[in-house]
Amino acid sequence: MRTLIKNGTIVTAIDQYSGDVLIEDEKIALIGSSLADIHADTVIDAAGKYVLPGGIDVHTHLDMPFGGTRSADDFESGTIAAAFGGTTSIVDFAIQYRGQTLHHAWETWMKKAEGKTAIDYGFHMIITELTDQVECEMDALVRQGVTSFKLFMAYRGIFMLDDGSIFRALLRTGQNGGTICMHAENGDVIDVLVQRALKAGHTAPKYHALTRPARAEAEATHRAIALAEMAEVPIYIVHLSAAEALEMVTEARDRGLPAYAETCPQYLFLSYDNYEEPGFDGAKYVMSPPLRDQAKQKELWRGLAFNDLQCISTDHCPFCMKEQKELGRGDFSKIPNGAPGIETRMSLVYDGGVRAGRISLNRFVELTSTSPAKIFGLFPRKGTIAPGADADIVVFDPNRTITLSAKTLHMKVDYNPYEGRQVTGAADTVLSRGRAVIAGGAFVGRKGGGSFLKRSTRA
Amino acid sequence: MRTLIKNGTIVTAIDQYSGDVLIEDEKIALIGSSLADIHADTVIDAAGKYVLPGGIDVHTHLDMPFGGTRSADDFESGTIAAAFGGTTSIVDFAIQYRGQTLHHAWETWMKKAEGKTAIDYGFHMIITELTDQVECEMDALVRQGVTSFKLFMAYRGIFMLDDGSIFRALLRTGQNGGTICMHAENGDVIDVLVQRALKAGHTAPKYHALTRPARAEAEATHRAIALAEMAEVPIYIVHLSAAEALEMVTEARDRGLPAYAETCPQYLFLSYDNYEEPGFDGAKYVMSPPLRDQAKQKELWRGLAFNDLQCISTDHCPFCMKEQKELGRGDFSKIPNGAPGIETRMSLVYDGGVRAGRISLNRFVELTSTSPAKIFGLFPRKGTIAPGADADIVVFDPNRTITLSAKTLHMKVDYNPYEGRQVTGAADTVLSRGRAVIAGGAFVGRKGGGSFLKRSTRA
Amino acid sequence: MRTLIKNGTIVTAIDQYSGDVLIEDEKIALIGSSLADIHADTVIDAAGKYVLPGGIDVHTHLDMPFGGTRSADDFESGTIAAAFGGTTSIVDFAIQYRGQTLHHAWETWMKKAEGKTAIDYGFHMIITELTDQVECEMDALVRQGVTSFKLFMAYRGIFMLDDGSIFRALLRTGQNGGTICMHAENGDVIDVLVQRALKAGHTAPKYHALTRPARAEAEATHRAIALAEMAEVPIYIVHLSAAEALEMVTEARDRGLPAYAETCPQYLFLSYDNYEEPGFDGAKYVMSPPLRDQAKQKELWRGLAFNDLQCISTDHCPFCMKEQKELGRGDFSKIPNGAPGIETRMSLVYDGGVRAGRISLNRFVELTSTSPAKIFGLFPRKGTIAPGADADIVVFDPNRTITLSAKTLHMKVDYNPYEGRQVTGAADTVLSRGRAVIAGGAFVGRKGGGSFLKRSTRA
Amino acid sequence: MRTLIKNGTIVTAIDQYSGDVLIEDEKIALIGSSLADIHADTVIDAAGKYVLPGGIDVHTHLDMPFGGTRSADDFESGTIAAAFGGTTSIVDFAIQYRGQTLHHAWETWMKKAEGKTAIDYGFHMIITELTDQVECEMDALVRQGVTSFKLFMAYRGIFMLDDGSIFRALLRTGQNGGTICMHAENGDVIDVLVQRALKAGHTAPKYHALTRPARAEAEATHRAIALAEMAEVPIYIVHLSAAEALEMVTEARDRGLPAYAETCPQYLFLSYDNYEEPGFDGAKYVMSPPLRDQAKQKELWRGLAFNDLQCISTDHCPFCMKEQKELGRGDFSKIPNGAPGIETRMSLVYDGGVRAGRISLNRFVELTSTSPAKIFGLFPRKGTIAPGADADIVVFDPNRTITLSAKTLHMKVDYNPYEGRQVTGAADTVLSRGRAVIAGGAFVGRKGGGSFLKRSTRA
Repeated sequence: MRTLIKNGTIVTAIDQYSGDVLIEDEKIALIGSSLADIHADTVIDAAGKYVLPGGIDVHTHLDMPFGGTRSADDFESGTIAAAFGGTTSIVDFAIQYRGQTLHHAWETWMKKAEGKTAIDYGFHMIITELTDQVECEMDALVRQGVTSFKLFMAYRGIFMLDDGSIFRALLRTGQNGGTICMHAENGDVIDVLVQRALKAGHTAPKYHALTRPARAEAEATHRAIALAEMAEVPIYIVHLSAAEALEMVTEARDRGLPAYAETCPQYLFLSYDNYEEPGFDGAKYVMSPPLRDQAKQKELWRGLAFNDLQCISTDHCPFCMKEQKELGRGDFSKIPNGAPGIETRMSLVYDGGVRAGRISLNRFVELTSTSPAKIFGLFPRKGTIAPGADADIVVFDPNRTITLSAKTLHMKVDYNPYEGRQVTGAADTVLSRGRAVIAGGAFVGRKGGGSFLKRSTRA
Repeated sequence: MRTLIKNGTIVTAIDQYSGDVLIEDEKIALIGSSLADIHADTVIDAAGKYVLPGGIDVHTHLDMPFGGTRSADDFESGTIAAAFGGTTSIVDFAIQYRGQTLHHAWETWMKKAEGKTAIDYGFHMIITELTDQVECEMDALVRQGVTSFKLFMAYRGIFMLDDGSIFRALLRTGQNGGTICMHAENGDVIDVLVQRALKAGHTAPKYHALTRPARAEAEATHRAIALAEMAEVPIYIVHLSAAEALEMVTEARDRGLPAYAETCPQYLFLSYDNYEEPGFDGAKYVMSPPLRDQAKQKELWRGLAFNDLQCISTDHCPFCMKEQKELGRGDFSKIPNGAPGIETRMSLVYDGGVRAGRISLNRFVELTSTSPAKIFGLFPRKGTIAPGADADIVVFDPNRTITLSAKTLHMKVDYNPYEGRQVTGAADTVLSRGRAVIAGGAFVGRKGGGSFLKRSTRA
Repeated sequence: MRTLIKNGTIVTAIDQYSGDVLIEDEKIALIGSSLADIHADTVIDAAGKYVLPGGIDVHTHLDMPFGGTRSADDFESGTIAAAFGGTTSIVDFAIQYRGQTLHHAWETWMKKAEGKTAIDYGFHMIITELTDQVECEMDALVRQGVTSFKLFMAYRGIFMLDDGSIFRALLRTGQNGGTICMHAENGDVIDVLVQRALKAGHTAPKYHALTRPARAEAEATHRAIALAEMAEVPIYIVHLSAAEALEMVTEARDRGLPAYAETCPQYLFLSYDNYEEPGFDGAKYVMSPPLRDQAKQKELWRGLAFNDLQCISTDHCPFCMKEQKELGRGDFSKIPNGAPGIETRMSLVYDGGVRAGRISLNRFVELTSTSPAKIFGLFPRKGTIAPGADADIVVFDPNRTITLSAKTLHMKVDYNPYEGRQVTGAADTVLSRGRAVIAGGAFVGRKGGGSFLKRSTRA
Repeated sequence: MRTLIKNGTIVTAIDQYSGDVLIEDEKIALIGSSLADIHADTVIDAAGKYVLPGGIDVHTHLDMPFGGTRSADDFESGTIAAAFGGTTSIVDFAIQYRGQTLHHAWETWMKKAEGKTAIDYGFHMIITELTDQVECEMDALVRQGVTSFKLFMAYRGIFMLDDGSIFRALLRTGQNGGTICMHAENGDVIDVLVQRALKAGHTAPKYHALTRPARAEAEATHRAIALAEMAEVPIYIVHLSAAEALEMVTEARDRGLPAYAETCPQYLFLSYDNYEEPGFDGAKYVMSPPLRDQAKQKELWRGLAFNDLQCISTDHCPFCMKEQKELGRGDFSKIPNGAPGIETRMSLVYDGGVRAGRISLNRFVELTSTSPAKIFGLFPRKGTIAPGADADIVVFDPNRTITLSAKTLHMKVDYNPYEGRQVTGAADTVLSRGRAVIAGGAFVGRKGGGSFLKRSTRA
């Protein structure tokens, strides 16, 4: 089975050239200036288009329980939506609930995904309780390809680990080669502020943001990096939203520390102002960390351009306004946290990043595919266009303009935070390990076509 | 009752001039270029000497219980030693143990001191549990002149407060005008390191230092400041020892935050190397935070010179080698934490600071007297030489050389960390509210001569 | 001759207390809580008022030639105006023109001032050409009490020295104890921008500011400090206006370098917006460096509060709109640079600093009197209220409100940049070496009452 | 003409994979996991070796006049040596002497190179006098493919431009798309220090270093970046040697400025200590900037790893000890500045960077080839291995150990600064546009085989 992608402009994190790509079965076999003479079963004409490594979204929450409800996309709808947006791999989060083993959590999430996903998928493991036994399980999971662990510095009593546990987990990854991902907000401060806000009758959605100050994120980011420094291991900050937190990452990297961070499109294209939308509409944007001041978004773009931020993920965690978000009417603290984004990432970042002149086309590929692959043990299998790599390829039309809308997007959620926004640049054809999953505007893959990604440890 | 101090060089935090000082009863009444014509009951000739505001030591632990023993100086011996060294006011720490009220703690410590001290004394209150009731008690204590509260970010299970409690305490001082003093070390990290060290058979005194990294102090310092920033109140870091922690204070002040910090003579004149002394001698220097690298002491001096450090206190907390320090033979974590210093502060800082050209004479006065008075609500009653101020005065001989030794010093402890060190500059005559407490090399005051200092709130 | 100031609140850079001050002849003789019993020839009742050390303005340009005209105040009118404002000492600038000796410049300026000033005065020497001979003269001047030298990094061909000359001058002060004061703007960049602006027909006053970017000041400030660092001497940046330049000073001080800087009231209370005033009115504010963005003034206040800025001077250099400023109609580069300020400094800074809660009352005294005295070799003779000091004293009414206006102020200039502004806090009675110069709203001193100040070298 | 490179590990700045490369004529035509079936005229077996893009050295001085002598390598010997070391493109410097046109300089250097080089070459243009006419010529040169200009902040009277000229040149590149390269040292300070050193009888080679302080480089680096910031253009700092200068670049990039810098192997592997070698041997290392403290080299490595330094070039500028370096016996300021390095760059950086674990293999390629190509307008023609790119390829043996020695290296200079050092990792076969220039340990190319590189402007 051979597929030939012809006449495109091939773009990786470093290269950009005219050429053809030949795929044999699941892998890229050949790249050349012209492969016109070569026989192929299928030929895709990419003239006028970019041929990109498939997007990798390392932060999604599909089929995730949350306060009596669950996130609106499961592994089927979520991965189909991802594919429509040009993403061919995700890394989702399995959750260890207190009193459970990591193994149990892993099995639970493996079952959720099994036979359902349209694209390849892996898991980070969320640790909420770190016993000695759990420490041992970490090693086992790393061997099984779950090579990253997410810890929380917020949500005391639910997800939050104390600094001692965080430090022990970090030390453990120093031995087993895993990577710690951190939700960096000072949860204790937030809890006090939330209690005081509610007591003062401040119940509207915007108080979600007003009780989660940027400094609380910056503090936790600094602390997380300091703990990693003392453990002599790398650290990865998830969904960094505040310029003040970015500054901590920048300072750490200026000192030579292996501190990494991702941000998400919502922190680049939405802002605190959205919480001031009329009625209960601010609830659409309730997520943690919250949206920040628009004036500081340029700092995040600087971080992306100068590699103080290495990845753009989505933190896709959709809840419908109806029946879900509205649980928090009259008490912002009960609004399910999260928003949809798995499908819109590539177009938003291309449009607002590359077309707007904030980042180069190479850097776009690096942020959305190559760096996530390298940091999370998927490279060189994923994240590039090179012989031997998985043929996860997006034929991306830089000139196609689409209008983002809950009606036309494929995520199973009844609103879209970017409703009505026009963006230029969109995926046309999407291949997952050599097979088309999106073509001609339709999903042409199959449920269960995706495989579990056994990821490598840090080099 | 009038005392005249003649012919001295009067030095404050800003001034230096030749002049005479007339004391009436407890207060400074008159200062002039020459008061030769004025009648006085007592005349002290200060020719060739400095006339300084009495030293103020805002960090002492007298008669303090610690792991089954108690600090070796009580309020009698400790304040006599202080007076010998040129210190005329101390602020000690009352401790709320868990389950107790602040009021109980205050009463307990008031009783310890009552009728015993040779010089004036006040208390900070250590809070180890912050219930709603305790929050209310904070207000009451502030009204009673206990206007500062010490919190711990280390010693989980004993002294440590979680960040939420710290934040609430900070918010409370925003209302009642009190000041939070912070022991800033990440205790959880330290606990993990201590456990691992002991498990690895690392039991010698030096492991006390090796399990309390500078970064753990820097992290906690940063966090404490961030919490105070979010609470919009000042913060005071006690016994700052690490250059890395100082950097956090400096950065905060560069951003305009009211962050303050003290260091102690031991961090300026002793260093990690002392832990390497033979046998169990390293135990002499076991204190928290520990002594740091000698190469970084110059950073502390920079901080002192440039006002990123505002005070020099002692953290006087003496334990004898015999029966006390030796509790930790075979397990460094059982060595009582602390060292003597209440008597040697002024001479050490004068000798190693002023004479060595690192700080000016004015700055010496500011660091050891004026700033502590201003920060802790004792100014203008204490901390300066001006009409109306308490006549707490030290006639200081800049040319007298003394040899520090446990044998000749007056602290009740069987060793001295500076044993044998020669320093030039020492208190000759010391007045506490107008009455001589030290004169002619002897204690001439009386037990119980000191009064409780009801301190003011922040301006 | 004895004068008693009774019942006032005496304020220095560190103290604040109720008391009386006795002056004998030119000096402060006695300070006490109450000197009611003491006979005095004159008694001034300062009840409800502050008794402050006289203001010291270390940056004035009286009777200064500039492009065919001269600054509008001479040493008589200028020093009278200064006295009205509560300033009792100035340090003006003598200018060495190229081809001349420093000695000639000094004599010229001594003659300008002789017999004219109402208050004491000293000189900095502006060096515009640094031959070997001039280097030798620097030493001589230092011995004569002209212990500071101003150099320019702007105005190529007129005042500007190359970096080699600056470096040699700095090295020289390392030997003779003098201090280098720097006009820190990159003149070459400015010259290019000015030429291009004029060529583009941009002739209005605002282009003065638009051709002198903040970064040009920051760069020169950084360079000046670096040159001083390599010469291992202190440096003093004059009229710092830009937050970006302040950042350079802050960073230097964070590294322990003896870098000092002054700012001026105009940079705290006026801003770029003033250049946009209608017609040619922007010319009123043409000075170098120019006024900056209002949003960044808070950074300067932070610097003042945290001692990254040590002094507030005026750069008083008045030119009338009529016949002087209007020389630059149609060509902003021909507008005489400078504005009046010698009289309004103390009231503006008290009102906008102390009353507005940005700096303390002690800090106000330090910035306007004590620090200038210490940095420029006038302390302890000037800059404090202590026995033995010159009786340069201001009885300052913190509650008197005045309206600033060219009509009522005493500077000989036909406009005032603060016209109509109301400020609260003003000098009532002003003594210069014990003699009243301002009393009852009138000048009661005498022309020529001021003496030349032979200043000391750095300690 | 087809060449097949088989079985190698292909490495670019981002990728690393097993594969074969087919070259047709001068270009890379095809890359595949296996091209075993494809006919080729020549087959190179790269099993066990890396297939790298040819090195690009953007800082060489071949056949350069200097103080009556000239650099020891001309365009023939220099480029052959480069090829031996794995470098397939250089960018040398043409020098405009004062009073000459840029065009004349360009023609002169084009003639020097014509028909001589073994590999491709381009030129930067050194501007030493910037008249209006020269500004116009800059545009013309950019159109002719000389798209970068080097300016000097040192060597007053010879190379140094004043800040105004530098600023104008920067502004010009804002229009014509060229790039300014800066020799960033404060020459005026250095000239003063050199004069004083010589006057004091300090004539030994080490005084070359002692009169060029790191701070003088840091200052000029800061200034250069500030000038570029005001001109709103990128800037490239050449041969950055001091950690203090790197800090300036880091801070600029943290603010989002397009500041770039290169360092050279000598600053990574040699240090001030070399100047202390016996006799006149220190002269071997006399170059500008000088070698710095060994303890700070780790800062440079951090900069290389974190992209605050983007390139490693050589500043190859060889002078023999005999007859050349010895011109400076008795006067260090007469020692010709420069040292050989064009041949040893790749091996030194691979050995001390990749093998020592300081940088990744990808980063090695990026620093020595890809980034120089991108910054200086040679990409994607050079700097990568991708279809359509020039077949400048190095088959690099990571396991071959060589001993660096003047005897065996091919540069025409009678000493080597790394004499006797063993390094592992060396070029085996080197192709320049598809033709072998180095094979089997011998030069197999031809004199004149290299072409002039007409470079592009910035994107």
